[in-house]
This record gives sequence, structure tokens and C-alpha cells, in this order.
Amino acid sequence: MLLGRVDGTLVASRKEPRMEGLKLLVVRQLEADGSDGSGYVVAVDAVGAGVGEVVMYATGSSARQTAATDQKPCDAVIMAIVDTWELEGKAVYTK
Amino acid sequence: MLLGRVDGTLVASRKEPRMEGLKLLVVRQLEADGSDGSGYVVAVDAVGAGVGEVVMYATGSSARQTAATDQKPCDAVIMAIVDTWELEGKAVYTK
Amino acid sequence: MLLGRVDGTLVASRKEPRMEGLKLLVVRQLEADGSDGSGYVVAVDAVGAGVGEVVMYATGSSARQTAATDQKPCDAVIMAIVDTWELEGKAVYTK
Amino acid sequence: MLLGRVDGTLVASRKEPRMEGLKLLVVRQLEADGSDGSGYVVAVDAVGAGVGEVVMYATGSSARQTAATDQKPCDAVIMAIVDTWELEGKAVYTK
Amino acid sequence: MLLGRVDGTLVASRKEPRMEGLKLLVVRQLEADGSDGSGYVVAVDAVGAGVGEVVMYATGSSARQTAATDQKPCDAVIMAIVDTWELEGKAVYTK
Repeated sequence: MLLGRVDGTLVASRKEPRMEGLKLLVVRQLEADGSDGSGYVVAVDAVGAGVGEVVMYATGSSARQTAATDQKPCDAVIMAIVDTWELEGKAVYTK
Repeated sequence: MLLGRVDGTLVASRKEPRMEGLKLLVVRQLEADGSDGSGYVVAVDAVGAGVGEVVMYATGSSARQTAATDQKPCDAVIMAIVDTWELEGKAVYTK
Repeated sequence: MLLGRVDGTLVASRKEPRMEGLKLLVVRQLEADGSDGSGYVVAVDAVGAGVGEVVMYATGSSARQTAATDQKPCDAVIMAIVDTWELEGKAVYTK
Repeated sequence: MLLGRVDGTLVASRKEPRMEGLKLLVVRQLEADGSDGSGYVVAVDAVGAGVGEVVMYATGSSARQTAATDQKPCDAVIMAIVDTWELEGKAVYTK
Repeated sequence: MLLGRVDGTLVASRKEPRMEGLKLLVVRQLEADGSDGSGYVVAVDAVGAGVGEVVMYATGSSARQTAATDQKPCDAVIMAIVDTWELEGKAVYTK
């Protein structure tokens, strides 16, 4: 999984029927030290995340292993909201 | 998923039989701020997208989770046409 | 899928038994504007492509969704020979 | 698989139910010569690894092929603790 | 698939039970012109490759499509030993 920050939302009214009702969030990838990474992803929200929150997301076929995304054309899912992580014993981020 | 803009079309008369009848579009990847990215992909269109439209596409095995692409050698599918997305409360793109 | 040009061939007599009888081609990735990309892949040929031809290939699990590659340790397959593609209404490549 | 060093831990109390009870570790990717790489991943620990240990991890759908991660939205798993590896006959790392 | 050269070996006594008995090799990725690439992978050996040999490897779920790697947390497998490959009619490598 990778760490990210929810930076925004996305609306798409015309979409694959199986994607109806799913919340789509624009997630900025974060580096392990908490700084902004260069990548982003649009992910389905499976845990009720909001803009500004630091999250963890899974990609690829693993993104379909939630109740919300099962058998859907979804390759990225937010599967956790991060409370804290630390590197070498020091907190990098605390909610 | 990633954001992209449909930049063109592709014709291939000699292809794997399972790919017959699918519309193939050349999609330029977009960054989260709406600028052109450096990557592209040729994707199957599952939602009736046209040249110039901003879309969302899924890759990998998730690209086969639509009625159009099920069990086909397809690793990228356009699964939504984007209406709008915003970052930190400001609209980046509106159709 | 990505666009590529078949640049060469590969012979491997000692291989996983399930790969017996498959033609292996060295494919240079092409950018959307038709210029050479920096990547390459060795792909199984599922459509009878020859050296010099411009093709489309699929990767990952989608590369196993052809009669030739089903259940084989193959992560790249040439699944179409490209006739033409165009960007913003102008032909980039015509066979 | 890739080589990594466990640099830290991560806590996420609000997460996809299937991820309950799994230990999440922040892993710095290592190059083949043992130097730090530029990437990282948050991986589920399937072998009892601790901070500072050099490990091997698998990504993608293969990360779900352990008892701990089966059918879970997990795309990276630590599946071995490395004792030693060598390049061209010289030990690069020994535990 | 990608081309690589077996540069070394890896020992991990503590690992996911399903990985017991598999030979793990450190593989340097090669470019299509035979020069060293920047990436590497630790792959399971499914064909009896040795250090110094030029091989072809598959990644992702396709790496599990061999008798040795079926249903194992393995995302890279050496599935062929290369005899020769050529580009534009000239041999790049001959065993």
C-alpha cells in the first residue's frame, strides 16, 4: 500500500454502471517522510475518508477486495485512514 | 484510476478475435492539476467517450471488469467521463 | 495497452514447459506521437506479427486472456497489428 | 520480489474490516547492492519482521497469497526475512 | 517479459511456508540492447538457471503460472534461459 492525502473530489455522472454510488477521491501520494510525492490516483473511498485526511490506499486487483469494490472496474481503493506512522522510532505523522 | 484526455483513435483490423468490435482510443494521461502528463495508454471505451473528452480509466485486471472487456486481453478501459473535479475546494476542471 | 514496434526475435530452448511453441518477439515501446519510447518488452505473439510491424500489446494478467497464452507464465502479449492511429484528427501512423 | 528494510510502523484504527489485526510496516526499498532505493511501501507482515530487519516483499495480487492476506485489500506483503544475499560471489548483506 | 542476468543468490530461512524449497535468484534487468538496466528483481527459478546466465522473467500474477510458483506469494519467476536474441537482424546476445 502507499500513503496519500485526500486532496479533492471528482464527479462523473456518465460511467460504467457498476461504479454507480461510489465516492471518488483525488489522492496525492505521500513519501515515507510525509512530504508530497509526484504521483496521484483517483480512488474509491471504502472507509469514509474526507478531504485533507491522510490515508492508505491499495492498487491493482487488491483494490477490488472490499465490499464496495468487488468485481468493479476499480484499480485503487482507500482502505484505511492513518492515525500515525513512525520511522526509526520518531513519529512522522500523527492525526 | 487515472485521469486522461481522449486525444485520438486507433484502428487495428488484424487482432485477437476477442477484441472485435471494441472502440480503441488513445488517451493522454493528465496530472491532478489538469496539465498534460507524460504517459499515454490505448484504452477500450466502455462509456461512449469522444475525442477531446476528459475521462477516467482503470488499468490492469480491473480493466476487464466491465461488460465490454470481460475475459479480453485488455489492460486499460475508460470507465467514466469526468464532469468535474476539484482540489482543495477549487474546481480544476469542469466539463 | 501500449503501442510498440517489433524490433527483433528471441530464442530460448530451455523454458517453462507451458511456453513451448510460442513465438517471442522483442518489442520497442512507442510514444503516442510515434517516436521511440525508452522501454521494451518481450511479448508472445498472438496475431502473427513480423519484425518491423507496429503493434499493440497488453501486459499483466490481461496478457493471459488469449487462446495462445491462457494459464501461461506470460505477462505481455501482442494482441493487434495497428493499421493507423491519429491524434487530434491527424494521422500519426499509417501502415 | 524486492528487497527492503523495515523502517517503521503504522497505525490505522479506521480501516476496511478485512484488514483488522494485521501488522503494517513501512518498508524502504533497497537496491541490489544494498543501498537505499527511492521507493517505499506499506506492507502487511506475514513473517514476524521487526524494525531494522532486511526483508523481501511481494506486491500485487501475489501479496494476497499468504494465510494472513488471503482475499484482503492488501497489495504488498513481507514474505521473508533475509539471511544473506550475494552478487557475483561476494556477500552484499549478512544478517 | 523482461530480459535479465542472474547476478546472485539469496537465502532466507524465515519465510512464508509456501515459499519453502524454492531457489531465489537476484536478477539484474537488461535493456533490449543487452546493456545493464537500472532495475533488479528477486525471482524464483523455475528453469534451473545459474549465476551469470541471461534469462527471461515474468512478473505479477503471471509469475504464479508455473508448477513451482502456483498459489505462492511470488511476483517474479525466471521462466526461460535465453539462447539468443536479435534486433533488426543482428544478434545482440548469443549464449
